[in-house]
Order: sequence, then C-alpha cells, then structure tokens
Amino acid sequence: MATVDPRADELLRRPIVGQLGFHGLDGYPRVVPVWFDYRDGELLVASPGGAYKGRALAADGRVAMAVSTPEAPYHLVTVLGDAAVERLPEAERIRFVGELATRYLGERGGREYLTRWGRGGRPGDGERIRIRLRQVRFRVV
Amino acid sequence: MATVDPRADELLRRPIVGQLGFHGLDGYPRVVPVWFDYRDGELLVASPGGAYKGRALAADGRVAMAVSTPEAPYHLVTVLGDAAVERLPEAERIRFVGELATRYLGERGGREYLTRWGRGGRPGDGERIRIRLRQVRFRVV
Repeated sequence: MATVDPRADELLRRPIVGQLGFHGLDGYPRVVPVWFDYRDGELLVASPGGAYKGRALAADGRVAMAVSTPEAPYHLVTVLGDAAVERLPEAERIRFVGELATRYLGERGGREYLTRWGRGGRPGDGERIRIRLRQVRFRVV
Repeated sequence: MATVDPRADELLRRPIVGQLGFHGLDGYPRVVPVWFDYRDGELLVASPGGAYKGRALAADGRVAMAVSTPEAPYHLVTVLGDAAVERLPEAERIRFVGELATRYLGERGGREYLTRWGRGGRPGDGERIRIRLRQVRFRVV
C-alpha cells in the first residue's frame, strides 16, 4: 500500500463509524456499521467469536469500507482491502474493545460501555478482523 | 416482501444517508453513501448516466443497504435487495434529484442544491436505481 492521501488519513483518524462491506455467505453483499481502529496502515475491527461477518470474511476476505461525515457536503473515504480474521483470547479482546470504546465514546463513556459489555469480566474469546488496505480514496460529494 | 417492522419503516423514512453495498466489477465489494427515497416499499437512488455503481448494478443487481443513527446506541436497519437500473430522461431526473435534495436538505437547502447541481437546467439524462426489498432487519447495537 502506497502512502495514504493526508485528507483520507485525517478522516480515518476521526471517531466516525465505518461502514464495512463484504460478500455474504448467500452471495448477496452485506453492509454493517462498525467501530474500527486505524493503526499502522491497517483497519482493525472487533467481532464476537463465530459471528456472521467473521465467518463470511473467513470465506472471502475482500472488503470495502466507507467512512463519511454525516452532513453535506460529505467528506468521504472509500477503502478496498483484504481482511484476515484472527482469534482473540479474552484478555486481549477486553483490551481491544476497551480501546475501541474509548475511541468512539471518550474515556468515561468507554469505561461505562466496557463495564456493561464485559459481563463481569468474562466476555469470552472473540475475533479481530485485520484489514490490509489495497486502495484508499478521498472525495467530497 | 412481507410487511416491514414499524421501527425499520420509521428509520427508513428519516433523512439519514444510506450506505449502499454492491459487488464491484473487479469482484471486490463496494460501499457508497447515497441519498435515497423510500416509497411504495422500494428504495430509490439517483445516479449520473454511466456511473460506476450503475454499471456494476446492471451486471449484478444484488445489494445491501445499511441505515443507522450516528451516535450510540445505534439504531440500525439492514436491507438486502435486488436493484434494477432505469434510464431517467433529463426532466424526470431533475424532478427526482430535487425530491431527494429536499428530503435531505429541507426546502431551502434542496432548492439551493438543485440550482448548483442542475448546471443551468441541462444536467442531461441520468439513472434511477430501484431496489426491491428482499429482507429488512431492525436492530439496536
């Protein structure tokens, strides 16, 4: 992956929900909103173990992601990438989900989220979807 | 298509940008934010003539759409559907884009948008993407 347009880079660093597109197991596409982290030129997404998106991405790792501001004129990043699904042991999963929750909800909101989400500290193992960027485009539409 | 969950129906009627997912011509999925109208149980999207999404949807009409509120807890509608791409003569195109702009920007903002967009009243022919709903789901995530 070559260097990313600085306007795309800036938008990907903002806590805007990503819209993850992938091929469903039935041949139809899917789009789901996801929290993601943007780190070392990759997009990272959390998932419960065995969830639909992880199973679909294990079968076909080709993904798209759109990140855009909510009001016109829309600043838009569209990404194509290749996803790998990694098993995430419980302790690492708690840490990763905590980082995502803080990114999107702030320190306090993230802590509160993690308390509700964590089910007394035993959420079980999960998955991390790691997306290698193949193409990144920035537009204003 | 059976009756739509009233919570999904309500969310689809709000002026929230839709995230349209489809199969790209290169085999990768695509996600693009779109203005849409929700009318008679169908989703309607405008497109310039010959644009990428229209060409891709003419080749494979299977689509997904996600519509979600921007802040947690996220109210989310996910749709699977089948798209047909229709040629839209200039006069109908102007009317349709005007309706969409009013839906998303209000009366005044919509008028201003249409003036900029319309290029002196000659934007040319375009396309309307008509999505027949196959599955509609509502969730709070």
